[in-house]
Amino acid sequence: MSQPSSDDTLERLADVIAQRRGGDPDKSYVARLFHKGRDSILKKVGEEATELVIAAKGGERQQVVYEAADLWFHALIALADAGVRPAEVLAELRRREGLSGLEEFAARKAQAREAGEP
Amino acid sequence: MSQPSSDDTLERLADVIAQRRGGDPDKSYVARLFHKGRDSILKKVGEEATELVIAAKGGERQQVVYEAADLWFHALIALADAGVRPAEVLAELRRREGLSGLEEFAARKAQAREAGEP
Amino acid sequence: MSQPSSDDTLERLADVIAQRRGGDPDKSYVARLFHKGRDSILKKVGEEATELVIAAKGGERQQVVYEAADLWFHALIALADAGVRPAEVLAELRRREGLSGLEEFAARKAQAREAGEP
Amino acid sequence: MSQPSSDDTLERLADVIAQRRGGDPDKSYVARLFHKGRDSILKKVGEEATELVIAAKGGERQQVVYEAADLWFHALIALADAGVRPAEVLAELRRREGLSGLEEFAARKAQAREAGEP
Repeated sequence: MSQPSSDDTLERLADVIAQRRGGDPDKSYVARLFHKGRDSILKKVGEEATELVIAAKGGERQQVVYEAADLWFHALIALADAGVRPAEVLAELRRREGLSGLEEFAARKAQAREAGEP
Repeated sequence: MSQPSSDDTLERLADVIAQRRGGDPDKSYVARLFHKGRDSILKKVGEEATELVIAAKGGERQQVVYEAADLWFHALIALADAGVRPAEVLAELRRREGLSGLEEFAARKAQAREAGEP
Repeated sequence: MSQPSSDDTLERLADVIAQRRGGDPDKSYVARLFHKGRDSILKKVGEEATELVIAAKGGERQQVVYEAADLWFHALIALADAGVRPAEVLAELRRREGLSGLEEFAARKAQAREAGEP
Repeated sequence: MSQPSSDDTLERLADVIAQRRGGDPDKSYVARLFHKGRDSILKKVGEEATELVIAAKGGERQQVVYEAADLWFHALIALADAGVRPAEVLAELRRREGLSGLEEFAARKAQAREAGEP
């Protein structure tokens, strides 16, 4: 049996998040986060990114897996809050995926820096 | 024709990253980042997470798509640096995907907090 | 001769930042950052916080000093952008400084968590 | 009566943190954070930086004061964990304070970027 694709995984997670969004904040973590509002959601994104950085800096491989999952999950909640489906982000990543695409990313950022940011 | 799955997308991106990893730092952004080392990679994860937070707080929908793509891309580089394939993170997310799974996540974090973190 | 107090240091830095704010973006880093706008300033706060986390996780003591200086400096720029003087932040810290004050901080955060955040 | 200098404020906070460091984790937030360890301390630095970014992006002036205080307080805890006194960070900031110093900062970072980071 083939492994489910991540499209299924991310889209299904987005569906689960959408279903729980309006649920009972006392029973669902996702409902509680939406109930608390955007700032609470975004705070979690920053928090989980920091946790991934700490785990990776420490070379803790299994912890890196957990923290990356936490970060992606909360990024999906932030996307839902902004009305964005994961498919849009994946399409943007595919658009950049070719050699030209990744260089385009680098070039875009490099130009921004060269325009003045140290 | 069906849209490529994100599994393909994320796995293909991981392949592209693996291919460029040992490339010429003068020609490839990914090679340059690996050449500069782990700290530079992790710094980008924190930076891109902050950019996603700023875009989402500002309600800039299209910018949210770009910044989420940047964050996921650099998270994939951090995963490669740690020797982790995206499939492992997606498997962890699927493991939590059911109602029990997400509540497990919430419970794990809540217990940690209750153990003393304000 | 006595060492200058940090009140002098932080207030003098705030003065320097205020003076450079409207300067030539081609000649001054601070002017350039204000010229680029709030998002660029806040992005630097997140970036420098991540760099402090990486240095501290790695146990690199001298790097911790540098990165903390970078973080405080960019926090001062963010404060200037918000129309806040360092003295206000220091007054808030003094307000919390007593035993009651720090416990108040902890209690405030703990209550927020207990209100639902896992 | 003159306002206490920030040097006093920061040094006194560092003293308070040092005193509580080995205290009862059930009674003191600071003792609890040290008891949980470096990762928990650094996680708070990332979390509070994100909260400052969110408050500043939202233009919430009073919240900016609170979140800057939270960030500086947790940075002081991270410094204590690394064996660094605030005076060292303030000295580093004074060293950079002159025009040459800030440009030196900008130049150092800019050179790093030009060396390859997009």
